[in-house]
Amino acid sequence: MITRMSELFLRTLRDDPADAEVPSHKLLIRAGYVRPVGPGLYSWLPLGLRVFRKIEQIVREEMNAIGGQEILLPALVPRGPYETTNRWTEYGDGVFRLKDRRGNDYMMGPTHEELFTLTVKGEYNSYKDFPLRLYQIQTKYRDEARPRAGILRGREFVMKDSYSFDVDDDGLKAAYHAHREAYQRIFARLGVKYVIVSAVSGAMGGSASEEFLAESEVGEDTFVRCLESGYAANVEAVLTQRPESLPIDGLPEPVVHDTAGTPTIATLVDWANGAELPQFAGREVVAADTLKNVLLKVREPGGEWELLAIGVPGDREVDEKRLGAALDPAEYVMLPAEDFPKYPFLVKGYIGPKALLANGVRYLVDPRIVDGTAWITGADEDGRHVVGLVAGRDFVADGTIEAAEVRDGDPSPDGAGPLVSARGIEIGHIFQLGRKYADAFTVDVLGENGKPVRLTMGSYGIGVSRMVAVIAEQSHDEIGLRWPSSVSPFDVHVVIANNDAEARSGATELARELDILGLEPLLDDRKMSPGVKFKDAELLGVPWIVVVGRGWANGVVELRNRFTGEKQEVPVDGAAAAIAAALTG
Amino acid sequence: MITRMSELFLRTLRDDPADAEVPSHKLLIRAGYVRPVGPGLYSWLPLGLRVFRKIEQIVREEMNAIGGQEILLPALVPRGPYETTNRWTEYGDGVFRLKDRRGNDYMMGPTHEELFTLTVKGEYNSYKDFPLRLYQIQTKYRDEARPRAGILRGREFVMKDSYSFDVDDDGLKAAYHAHREAYQRIFARLGVKYVIVSAVSGAMGGSASEEFLAESEVGEDTFVRCLESGYAANVEAVLTQRPESLPIDGLPEPVVHDTAGTPTIATLVDWANGAELPQFAGREVVAADTLKNVLLKVREPGGEWELLAIGVPGDREVDEKRLGAALDPAEYVMLPAEDFPKYPFLVKGYIGPKALLANGVRYLVDPRIVDGTAWITGADEDGRHVVGLVAGRDFVADGTIEAAEVRDGDPSPDGAGPLVSARGIEIGHIFQLGRKYADAFTVDVLGENGKPVRLTMGSYGIGVSRMVAVIAEQSHDEIGLRWPSSVSPFDVHVVIANNDAEARSGATELARELDILGLEPLLDDRKMSPGVKFKDAELLGVPWIVVVGRGWANGVVELRNRFTGEKQEVPVDGAAAAIAAALTG
Repeated sequence: MITRMSELFLRTLRDDPADAEVPSHKLLIRAGYVRPVGPGLYSWLPLGLRVFRKIEQIVREEMNAIGGQEILLPALVPRGPYETTNRWTEYGDGVFRLKDRRGNDYMMGPTHEELFTLTVKGEYNSYKDFPLRLYQIQTKYRDEARPRAGILRGREFVMKDSYSFDVDDDGLKAAYHAHREAYQRIFARLGVKYVIVSAVSGAMGGSASEEFLAESEVGEDTFVRCLESGYAANVEAVLTQRPESLPIDGLPEPVVHDTAGTPTIATLVDWANGAELPQFAGREVVAADTLKNVLLKVREPGGEWELLAIGVPGDREVDEKRLGAALDPAEYVMLPAEDFPKYPFLVKGYIGPKALLANGVRYLVDPRIVDGTAWITGADEDGRHVVGLVAGRDFVADGTIEAAEVRDGDPSPDGAGPLVSARGIEIGHIFQLGRKYADAFTVDVLGENGKPVRLTMGSYGIGVSRMVAVIAEQSHDEIGLRWPSSVSPFDVHVVIANNDAEARSGATELARELDILGLEPLLDDRKMSPGVKFKDAELLGVPWIVVVGRGWANGVVELRNRFTGEKQEVPVDGAAAAIAAALTG
Repeated sequence: MITRMSELFLRTLRDDPADAEVPSHKLLIRAGYVRPVGPGLYSWLPLGLRVFRKIEQIVREEMNAIGGQEILLPALVPRGPYETTNRWTEYGDGVFRLKDRRGNDYMMGPTHEELFTLTVKGEYNSYKDFPLRLYQIQTKYRDEARPRAGILRGREFVMKDSYSFDVDDDGLKAAYHAHREAYQRIFARLGVKYVIVSAVSGAMGGSASEEFLAESEVGEDTFVRCLESGYAANVEAVLTQRPESLPIDGLPEPVVHDTAGTPTIATLVDWANGAELPQFAGREVVAADTLKNVLLKVREPGGEWELLAIGVPGDREVDEKRLGAALDPAEYVMLPAEDFPKYPFLVKGYIGPKALLANGVRYLVDPRIVDGTAWITGADEDGRHVVGLVAGRDFVADGTIEAAEVRDGDPSPDGAGPLVSARGIEIGHIFQLGRKYADAFTVDVLGENGKPVRLTMGSYGIGVSRMVAVIAEQSHDEIGLRWPSSVSPFDVHVVIANNDAEARSGATELARELDILGLEPLLDDRKMSPGVKFKDAELLGVPWIVVVGRGWANGVVELRNRFTGEKQEVPVDGAAAAIAAALTG
């Protein structure tokens, strides 16, 4: 079918919309692909919907190729199953909740582990039924606090979510790797530049997990990578390279000093550099020589609030994202000022390991605090610090925790070189959920040995609608969009730039021939100046533009490549076949 | 691709589900097409989703064929636009409403006239941009009071809704007829038996409107038709055949009689037959000779409650659906007993036209009450009726109203014969909305003469997901489903009914060849008895079944037609081509 711009429901805009911040948002609006309806809510106009459907179809094909079976669950989901897994509560304000006319609770489902688990439980009951891989491509909802960047983070969006069901860990691993490879094929076909980063699974529960991040400066996710080895991880997932322990024998005994007027690490370091401490003879004392102790309250699901102390080198802040991930599924808050008086042994500004351990406070330290390291830290008395407190001799923590910030230049966990940080947009996420959901709903099937076996699951998501914006974000220039052929709304954009009647009908005939050759042509048959049409063609971003212009009289049309800007003349005779060859070549 | 039943996510059930009442519901569950998740909420399993997608694609093709352009609006819609048209209120309990984290009101959109109108207003501004036909295929939500009959009336469902935009009435009519014809093509391709009935538009507003009803005993919609002429209409839309006026000259004057003890029409008729009234000399008095007056309160949108009296022949009840449609968009209630004392001229049980008209009560009568007809009716005094009150002489009503019930045997409005009633399922609805929404949002575009012209709209819906159940309802027998080829989940069901290794691999090879020929085969390769497999094949309802059974040894397979039950032997040599020919022939 030939699509004519004279009839296409499309108006391009000359100016960027006032509220659009990121390039994809500006261009998708200016080029008439989407329109805002409300915060985080967009309409897909014909061009946008065409791109969206092409992405959807690529995702579908690759899911089918790994044996995925497509089903479709309701988006409106009852409270019950989410209550069972506690996610009804855990989602907090992040989901849209509603009541029906009988007062029963529902939500607009943000993800469907519960219902897929129950669906499989309802049908299958023997190890012979597995492995099983199910997926759906569905409109989902999240009540984002700050819907932003157009369709990059909307409140209504389309995801492909799939779930694997296996009777053993090997099966789960196979499903996980099949999805990982399918995702790589999908993103390759979509022409997206991305990295796979180690991730922690957060509220989803489970063990192994990786994220696919599209590289983008406008991304909300920070990740770090090692350029030498290719290691990449979410900041939450970075493991600190643990130094070797040091010999303790011969280290001087700790000495308590009066350090009044040193409420901060900076003032403490200043004091230490002026105190001519024998331990630091010949070198400057730095913040990394101090040990900072932070107090929090932690609560395991269903448990009581408990005090927790975390020790980190004084040159590093606690990173709340890393801290949260390390403590998950427990929740935490920094110890409020009003709680300190409840614990008289906590001397604010001078908290040290000794009082914490003596009073039975659980105490976790950064992995850099290995046996044999000596620290300047609080002496648990007002205005006093201790110098030369040795880990493994003067205090023994209850364990380590990955809570200190990760910085550019930190060593990669694989030892290959320094880490550098970058920003990305989450486009895919694969999880080995394990038995969390099968446990919650007691999903056992008959095992090969006749005994019941509990299923193990994986969950795998791709943001389908978001991908339209991600591709636009990675694939544009200052004058417009530039779609990879695999997702372009049309294969070729035929611009009539010559109002001679013969040229017009020749262009229409050319479009018809391209259509017959199996290409999808867009024909700009509007009665407008060639300049306006060229600008629109560049803005819309179809990768190949055919100009039927002045050359028509000389028997040629012009074929332009929207990516390289290259132009070539193509004889009118046999133009369709030549263009088709150029496009697929 | 070959789909193997050994891997397909499918379990058929031997027994009908306990809560299923209608055949399509029972069979779609038993055959593993859908599964319930909650009241009016269903999951589509692989087979159901395949049928659903085929229907969706047929609808899409036919909408594209009439120049429809597909877009997709959010299902989560803000309150504002629906407030403008008052539909936020009018929907009452029928929609799912929710608030976002900021407390703003939204609903899950049941239909999208408002947002389509605003979308077009945002893009187009000249008569040159029209006609325009837009559509979407979208998941929609209604908080049904009684979700019933499986996916026939769910709370989450998929509709195709399209909207036409034109600058004049001729354009609207053309769009309406284009949709009407597209719908006829769609339902023909889907193999659905249906009638087109005149409808009133109810809450949608507007003027001309027709419904497409699938003929079905389990339908919730009653309609009437004339078998002689083919006339069909919703009960709400039936126009009463208005009798000719009768001459008034020479009719006797009305006489008031004591009629104590005649509180009902039946007792009044008994009294009249005993009273030897000269007007009825030689014939029996019947209920149709009496005139019953009913009192209501009516309120126009934004107006005050006002008294309204309706006069109907005593043998007919007021049909509240017809009354509601006739008064729309005004709302009404029957006059509550406690309101009667406010109007001392209303003598309950003896209300007649005279007191109503004398006291300025608006009085509408059934179209059968033409000038020159004489009635027995209330005399506005306790225990008294008047006999021989002549319309057009003794009282003149303010107009007529279509509020009396329609009965089997009533004459068809086209005069061709009697009406008979039947039941149907609404599968499509086409409306000429006119300027209701363009007025609400002031959608004017530049007209050809340079002056602004207001757009006129149509709205057109098809229940896409419901259609799966409608087809199942019309196309099944006592042993299972029977899909028309156009929507069958597979083209051919190959049953391996011979466990000989050669037969198995031959069947697989046959399925592969059918696949190569462009057919979609389902291969039952399960290790089960032939009997179980045949039962499942009949239940699933693929229209053609190939049995690779005992005949294999003799070089034949069997081809069965699920509709006719016919069986034919097909030589194994060239079986795929022969089967393909039979299927398409």
